[in-house]
Amino acid sequence: MTFELLGRDGRARRGRMTLPHGVVETPTFMPVGTAGTVKGLTPHELRDAKTQILLANTYHLWLRPGAAIIAHAGGLHRFMAWDGPILTDSGGFQVFSLRERRRLDDDGVTFASHLDGSMHRFTPESVIQFEESLGVDIAMVLDVCVRLPAERQELERAVALTSQWATRAAAARARPETAVFGIVQGGLDRALRERSARDVIAAGFDGYAIGGLSVGETRAEMEEATRFCADLLPAERPRYLMGIGTVLDALLAIDGGIDMFDCVYPTRCGRNGRAMTRAGEFHIRNAAFVCDLRPIDQTCDCLVCRTFTRAYLAHLFRSNEMLGPRLLSYHNVFMLNQLLADARDAIEQKDWARFCAGIKEGVHRNPLISRNVAEDIAAGEGGN
Amino acid sequence: MTFELLGRDGRARRGRMTLPHGVVETPTFMPVGTAGTVKGLTPHELRDAKTQILLANTYHLWLRPGAAIIAHAGGLHRFMAWDGPILTDSGGFQVFSLRERRRLDDDGVTFASHLDGSMHRFTPESVIQFEESLGVDIAMVLDVCVRLPAERQELERAVALTSQWATRAAAARARPETAVFGIVQGGLDRALRERSARDVIAAGFDGYAIGGLSVGETRAEMEEATRFCADLLPAERPRYLMGIGTVLDALLAIDGGIDMFDCVYPTRCGRNGRAMTRAGEFHIRNAAFVCDLRPIDQTCDCLVCRTFTRAYLAHLFRSNEMLGPRLLSYHNVFMLNQLLADARDAIEQKDWARFCAGIKEGVHRNPLISRNVAEDIAAGEGGN
Repeated sequence: MTFELLGRDGRARRGRMTLPHGVVETPTFMPVGTAGTVKGLTPHELRDAKTQILLANTYHLWLRPGAAIIAHAGGLHRFMAWDGPILTDSGGFQVFSLRERRRLDDDGVTFASHLDGSMHRFTPESVIQFEESLGVDIAMVLDVCVRLPAERQELERAVALTSQWATRAAAARARPETAVFGIVQGGLDRALRERSARDVIAAGFDGYAIGGLSVGETRAEMEEATRFCADLLPAERPRYLMGIGTVLDALLAIDGGIDMFDCVYPTRCGRNGRAMTRAGEFHIRNAAFVCDLRPIDQTCDCLVCRTFTRAYLAHLFRSNEMLGPRLLSYHNVFMLNQLLADARDAIEQKDWARFCAGIKEGVHRNPLISRNVAEDIAAGEGGN
Repeated sequence: MTFELLGRDGRARRGRMTLPHGVVETPTFMPVGTAGTVKGLTPHELRDAKTQILLANTYHLWLRPGAAIIAHAGGLHRFMAWDGPILTDSGGFQVFSLRERRRLDDDGVTFASHLDGSMHRFTPESVIQFEESLGVDIAMVLDVCVRLPAERQELERAVALTSQWATRAAAARARPETAVFGIVQGGLDRALRERSARDVIAAGFDGYAIGGLSVGETRAEMEEATRFCADLLPAERPRYLMGIGTVLDALLAIDGGIDMFDCVYPTRCGRNGRAMTRAGEFHIRNAAFVCDLRPIDQTCDCLVCRTFTRAYLAHLFRSNEMLGPRLLSYHNVFMLNQLLADARDAIEQKDWARFCAGIKEGVHRNPLISRNVAEDIAAGEGGN
């Protein structure tokens, strides 16, 4: 892969990744296709919704359908019929979320499948080998992710193992077409983040991710850590902030010098009736929308906003019709991708600060519909 | 509306309905959009899958979202963003399925909503008024539907009331753009069917439906009753057989002189993993398909068959991914619509008997996958 840094405006960066399956203009959002499908949407629709690159989950694909079937189908692109770039995570985040169902040792991590309890083992080498077998454009290295707040000792061990595993992952590479990104850990501890960045950069990767954020810390802490970590990373490589995807988080990331980020947020919200707009979020089941003949977002040019009313979407959700989650997921993905396209323009035109402030003002204008909804989702509103 | 009878081949008829929202070539299948949505599919996809006319359910739309909201949206077409022809059933079938929750009298039927227990009342007049308020192309009159087998006395009363209500419905018409179809009842009793047909034809409608079949009788009984009833109906009006939608039932209907039919079958099967093909049906969750890189149907030209493998569909269903039901519903609707298009060609070319026999042979070729699956569905495999 190649990465060109085309311009900057403050910390915000405008870049371009060229990958085996296409060009990705950055900063970019990556919708999440956990099990080889972005829930409810076809590859054609993802393109139409301005998606440049997808993320798929190693943990889920490893367990089902497994490496053999995807290889039999000719790789993940052909299996899921998406011909654009794909990034796979390393499964680290999922495995460490299993808590009681996994056992970490210095060599790797053994875990029980959430599907059937069968035992599996991830090592830095086995994960790279799996991701390369999928034929993806970008593979992430196996890291050790810690939920915050955490003891310093736990963070230290996570950083040390993440560094060792990064070196092993780099040595395990066998497929030049698959770029590999390292991951910086260290929680909110500056010294640990510095140590982690130094080690992972020394191992040598095509790009660098900031892991271990958006895992329990405050928003101010995440913002500070994002900036601090981004500044530690080489300017000539893409920088990826893992697991964020609200409008405000997107602005935070770009403003901190991030080039890529991913989250289930837009599709999970969409499935649960939460509409994302530049004037904040709202829940389509709210009684206010039953008779509302406006589109979800009057400023949005997506197929859903051009075709359907809030009243119809409200009816679909109240009737538990599967078309509702599908249409709202599409809108949310389009909306975030369009925001990113506009952000790229703003950076090119050295207008980032004004653009960013304008979007923030819009989101905050309606406090009722712009409150943080991460808790709702964590509390079980959504699927995975 | 106008109906032209363009040709015949045996009993099979080739016709054309011209309705306010478009032309419908017959014989035709009508996918069912119960609550103003064909489950999982957009209007654009329905068109793409060769749908000419949709059916929507008066009972469901009456209860939710209700007449006021649809009128506020500018009618059912605008509400659901489908600009082609729509036929609404009268709600009779649904209401009489409620059994313990409804009370029939000579003037109409009072029932409790399955959603919230609220009480509602259908009369021949209130149903026509509701359907006209939706702005649909074809409205069905309220009839009294009886589950088979039934006592002759019950059938007689159903026929008598259906006849009286037909006359009242005809008198209640107020919107010339909405065509109205009468419904012939009478179970498997020839004398009652004759009486019902005579009365309903005397009331005078734009088309005639055969109701009260596919409700418990054998296949041979349905075939015989369809032919007998079709022969009772005026040749110059469209004939609609209500509630059938398998490949074999489609052949039976066309062969009996039917021009239109509807069923949830293709979409319900699609949601539940059952693929319809001209070589019979199969369940995509079957282990045989996990590694099968062929499309659902190698003879099918639909977007799903051109894009995705059985292996991928099997993965989606095994992972409970909503894309699976969506894609298989699309294929099944396309497949049945394409079968009808080919049937129309065959009738035009006086090749109906050979075509019909060829499709039957294909479906029967694989007995394992072509067994009657109505029982599976009745046993709770599907939603509504």
